[in-house]
Order: sequence, then C-alpha cells, then structure tokens
Amino acid sequence: MKNALMILGLGLMAFTSYAQQDLFNEPSLVSPEINPDKTVTFRIKAPLAQSVSVSGSLDGDNAFAPITYQMEKGEGGLWTYTTPLLPSELYRYNFSVDSVRTLDPSNSYAIRDVSNLSNIFLVEGGKADMYKVQDVPHGTVAYRWYDSPGNDKKRRMAVYTPNGYENSTEDYPVLYLLHGVGGDEEAWLGSGRAAQIMDNLIAQGKAEPMIVVMTNGNVFQQASPGNGSRGFPKITFMLPNTMDGKFEETFGDVMTFIKNNYRTKDSKAGRAIAGLSMGGFHTANIALNYPDTFDYIGLFSSALGVRMGNVTSTMYENQDEKLKQQMDNGYKLYWMAIGEDDMDMILKGNQDFRTKMDNLGMKYEFVGTKGGHTWNNWRDYLTIFAQRLFK
Amino acid sequence: MKNALMILGLGLMAFTSYAQQDLFNEPSLVSPEINPDKTVTFRIKAPLAQSVSVSGSLDGDNAFAPITYQMEKGEGGLWTYTTPLLPSELYRYNFSVDSVRTLDPSNSYAIRDVSNLSNIFLVEGGKADMYKVQDVPHGTVAYRWYDSPGNDKKRRMAVYTPNGYENSTEDYPVLYLLHGVGGDEEAWLGSGRAAQIMDNLIAQGKAEPMIVVMTNGNVFQQASPGNGSRGFPKITFMLPNTMDGKFEETFGDVMTFIKNNYRTKDSKAGRAIAGLSMGGFHTANIALNYPDTFDYIGLFSSALGVRMGNVTSTMYENQDEKLKQQMDNGYKLYWMAIGEDDMDMILKGNQDFRTKMDNLGMKYEFVGTKGGHTWNNWRDYLTIFAQRLFK
Repeated sequence: MKNALMILGLGLMAFTSYAQQDLFNEPSLVSPEINPDKTVTFRIKAPLAQSVSVSGSLDGDNAFAPITYQMEKGEGGLWTYTTPLLPSELYRYNFSVDSVRTLDPSNSYAIRDVSNLSNIFLVEGGKADMYKVQDVPHGTVAYRWYDSPGNDKKRRMAVYTPNGYENSTEDYPVLYLLHGVGGDEEAWLGSGRAAQIMDNLIAQGKAEPMIVVMTNGNVFQQASPGNGSRGFPKITFMLPNTMDGKFEETFGDVMTFIKNNYRTKDSKAGRAIAGLSMGGFHTANIALNYPDTFDYIGLFSSALGVRMGNVTSTMYENQDEKLKQQMDNGYKLYWMAIGEDDMDMILKGNQDFRTKMDNLGMKYEFVGTKGGHTWNNWRDYLTIFAQRLFK
Repeated sequence: MKNALMILGLGLMAFTSYAQQDLFNEPSLVSPEINPDKTVTFRIKAPLAQSVSVSGSLDGDNAFAPITYQMEKGEGGLWTYTTPLLPSELYRYNFSVDSVRTLDPSNSYAIRDVSNLSNIFLVEGGKADMYKVQDVPHGTVAYRWYDSPGNDKKRRMAVYTPNGYENSTEDYPVLYLLHGVGGDEEAWLGSGRAAQIMDNLIAQGKAEPMIVVMTNGNVFQQASPGNGSRGFPKITFMLPNTMDGKFEETFGDVMTFIKNNYRTKDSKAGRAIAGLSMGGFHTANIALNYPDTFDYIGLFSSALGVRMGNVTSTMYENQDEKLKQQMDNGYKLYWMAIGEDDMDMILKGNQDFRTKMDNLGMKYEFVGTKGGHTWNNWRDYLTIFAQRLFK
C-alpha cells in the first residue's frame, strides 16, 4: 500500500498542470473585482472585439431597460470597466462582446432567471449582508416531490426548514412563498436568496423560526426547467395554465402535502402566504378562495391588474363577496408593497385593489418603495414581511 | 375586486411585450437542436466575429484536450455547426467567439464543474435515458448542515433519500458518494446526475432503495463555492487540506450526523462508500481507517497514485497492515473501475494497488473501460456499482 499511495514527488502538481485545460482551467483574470472603495471593476480579454459592454442590475435592477456601460480596451485586448461606488446589494450582470451576450469567463457564479443566465456578485457592508451566507446556524433546503391529483401529476417544491427543525418535536408555522411569471420553485432560492434571508433573520432573532414552502406556480410543469420529465425544453416566458385559476384551484394539494409531511402549526395563526408579481396575484386569489386559512398575506409588486383574456375560473368569480368574507373572517396582517417605477398596469391594479379594500373598510398595510419590478425590491420585501410573521 | 382583477383585454400580452428585454428576453434561436437523426446543430448569432467554434464533451469528454469544431458563418452573421451522429449521453459544451469563452445564449441550461460553466444537453434513446428525469417516483434531495467538530466548523452535505423514505418507518442502507478534486457536495448531483440515476435504477427495480450521502471533501470549505460564509471566492483548482488526511480523519463527523438524523441500517452490511478520482483516494483510505465499517467499496478512476508531497497523516500510515486487516475483516464487494485513456499516474496507481491486493490474495472486481478521467465514465460507474449494493 505504501507503494500504491507513495508520495509521487510532485505527483499532484503534475496532475494539476496536466489539467490546465478546459474543465480544469482556472481563469487567470480577476473579474469582478470589488475594490476597497466599493467600486467594482470588470475585466474580459477579447483582443479581436470591436466593442464590449457590461449591463445588468448595476443601475438598480431596471429589468426592462438596463443601462449598458461601454468597456475600455487596454493592452493585450483586455477590456475593463469600473463602476461608481455601488451600494450594498446582490448584483447580476453579463457582458456583450460585439453584440454577443457573454457571461464573464472569470466569474464562476451565475443564476438563471427566466431564460437567461447572468453572473452575480455581492457588495457587502449593508443590506446585502442579509443575502450572504453568514456563519450562523443554517436551515435545510429540500427539493420534495408531491402528488397533485388536481393537476394529474407529481410536482416539485422546495422546502426550507429552519435550523433545529429536524432535531425538535415542536410544530412550526409555515410561510408559502410564491414566484413570478417565468419563475419556478428555484426562483426564491436563487435570485431571491430566501434561505440566506431566513437563516440570517432567525439567527438575529428578528424572525420566528418557520418553514418556507416554495412552490412551482406553473402547473403545466412538474418542476423547474431541466428537473421535470420534459427534459431540457426551451424556456418560454409564458406557459399554459399560469394565470387561469388552475394553480389556485390545486393549491390544496400543496397544503395537504405539507400538513402530512411536516410538523406544522396547522391553524390560521400558523399560516402565511406571500408572492411576487404573478405570485402576488396567486396569493391574493388563494387567500380569497381558501377562506379563514391565512393570518398573514403578503403581496409583493403583485400583478393584480394583469389578467389573461378569456379565462373563466371559479377562482376568479364572486370576488367582491369573497373579499368581504375575508374581511369578516379576520386576519392579522395584509401587507402590500410596490415600487414607484413598476409598470403602470401593475401600479393601477394595486391602486384599484386598495380602493376596493378602502371602500369595504378592510385593513391593510401599504408600503411604497423606490425601484421597480425587481428582485432588489422582492428581497427587501421578504426581509421586511418575514419579520412581521407569527408574533 | 372585479375591477381590480378585471380582464384588461390584452393586459398579459402587453406585460409580455413590455418585458421583451434583458431578463425577460426569450432567445429566438434554437440551439442546440437535437435533430431526428441524432446529429446536433449549434447556432449562435455573431455578425462581427471572425471565428467561432464549439467544444466540450462532443468527442467523448476528453477534459484535457477536447477537440474544437469550427463553426460556419451564414446569412445575417449566424454561425452553425452540425455534429455527426452523437451517441446517447449527457453532453457539455461552450462556444469560443473570437477566442472569448462564451456560453450558448440560446441555451438556458448550464452546469458549473470546478471553475467553469458549460452548457449541457442530453441525447436520449440509450444510456443517457438513465440520466433523464423520467416520469417515475422521485426521491428527495436535501442540503443539510452538520457539525464537524474535527474541522471546527459547520459543513454542508447533500442527502438523497429515495422515494418513500419520508413516509415509511423502515431503516435504509447508506451509500457515501465522494467527489473529485475541484468538486464539492453538488458535483454528483450536477455533472453526476446521481439523483436521476438513483430514481431510475430504483424505479426499474435494479437498485435497492438507499440513502445517498454526498459530502464535501474539501474540509477547507464549509460548503460548495457560493454556499459558505466565504462568499463568492475565486474558485481554485486545489484547496488546502484536500488530500492531507483531514477529510478521512473527520469522516466520522459525517457518519455520526447521518446515524443521528436518518433511519439507517446501521451496520457494515448497510454501508457502502464510493468516490471518483480524489474521492476514490478518500474512499480507499476511509475504508482502511474505519475498519469493518463498509461492506461495499467503489473506486472510480481513483487517484491512488496521486499524493501531496510532505503530507504526514496517521490516515496514510501502516497501510499494508490496514489493508491486511480489511481483507481479514471481510467485505462483500471491492469494486474498481478505470478508463483506458486515464492519466498514466492514475492508471499506474490503480495497477500498483491491484498488485498489492493480488499479493495479499485480497478479492476485488476490476472493470477496465474505454474513455478517460470523465463524468461520462463516472455516471456509468455509479450506474453499475449502485446495482450491486445491499443485495
């Protein structure tokens, strides 16, 4: 065995140098570099390119018209761009090299949001510390498959259980956390940093330990793209059956699974539901159609004013009566937040909904923020909303 | 509420068309296109480029010297390349546009292996069907944090529990499955498709339901890059404390966690351990140093001939005696597999180890395969090895 495992001199070094290609290649550039003054420098080597730019959420995550920053060509075809001081945030970006969308070859970290991969980086020292993996007790993230008879398929969800859950006999409250259009059960964990936010809030004593259930709101899918039996389909922005009542109608399948598989506080006081954009639309409708089920409702940039044409669903019928009933049944918190730069139809949808609630005398909290229809806002909203639950 | 949720005519369509930029942009090209004859066409629009190529595992996953295929420029700056017929496999690839490493902007699917992201696609109709998410009962994948006092830190592992585990009271056998250098607790799930392989083998009745524990063998890390408190470090190929005995020495922390947190068949007959490359080296040493603990040992392209210089560890001492003891204690299966095109030092390390075993009269099975030090082989090896366990 000594022979077999003998020290082969510089064996490992040879292994490493032999491996300096392709898969095992380590990018030699540092990009992005987060400078001590909180500016950020991007670098890419592209000696033959005529034009290289960087864009993403550097300007505050304007997903619809991000500003493109031209990079400057230096020696050896090295293009660079240094940002002004960037506030603490989780940023995404990509390069465009002669108009080809390119990830940063020096950055191994990327997240898919809807169809596209973007690189990410985090500027510490402020609110993004909440999105960091800190050296605190961590919860478990599990990808679970559940039976959804209402959709005639097995479906996948992500479940966050807080640190200590597995070694306790206590019952825990549950937050159902829903994604937006084009998202799936991975969206809140990826772009949304939900596991880190919950870990950090709970460790700081700011939020109660809770189970967070992240569903897939596209009932056409079994699971996020690549994780269902459809293989690796081209990801389309709109899928069938996303806003036609089917998800809301079959949400009972989700709750049944959680009730049967987790130790939950199985009461209205132990249940919260929140969602972003389409998930806010789903949230509002689930709260209406599962009466007296949730004590906490959160609408994050909720797509209340958006509606598929030609959709008929009992989920969307008699909504005035359902809203009145919800008010009469009571709840602890109805929380709505939206950015001032959101889309007009979404701003209007939220305003109309608030008018309706005001006319009924229905209580809610409204938080108007800066920014638009962005993950920057949704991470903020989750951070705020989670601290209000189950207290 | 009817107002709030009223059908805004083509509201959603407007929402969609408003969103036709950046994040919400859907790539218009189809790439890769898996043609009916099992050739594959790649496409990328790069009107200003002088030269575009595609490389990856198209030639059988030669990670060290992959063949680069030149793409052809067509109308509108559309570059294309069509492969010959590709055997059923999970492939990875990337483009090089004027020598800039570029992911395929039309393919949303990518996996990080060591430092680099590559796009993936799957050619069905053969062995890769085992790597597909099929419409079969699925197990759970959970990311768990455990206490490793031996490393003075909390660390992360991935645990696959087979379908039915959570709703049963039975004890299950455990396979500990270790990654190679540069990998982490996500490697076997990403490039290795371990969850799909286990789901499919179990559904077909070819493997026993078992728990699969995927550790992080780099004890310098808490977790895979981006998931530990070091933030998003530049990923380096070699980390401290990967092959210095520390992982083997603290493997008891992993086993203690599993024993305390899962219903396991807590006996030698209920334990298997296997690993690829560095993980095969770890496997051989753990089997030697935890005597009479594992009935099944699997070395996949094991880095037996590779060794850090200047390393001293009790884990690597008295190995002849430990090997003799292992033989005397007995086991059900000692399985070794390696590709004929692997690195010389690894081939030699395996040959030396076999000679040692032969001299002792120690039983093992050796499988020589085509191919090299590749995920293509490691997925195959897991598929074969898993069928031999706990029967």
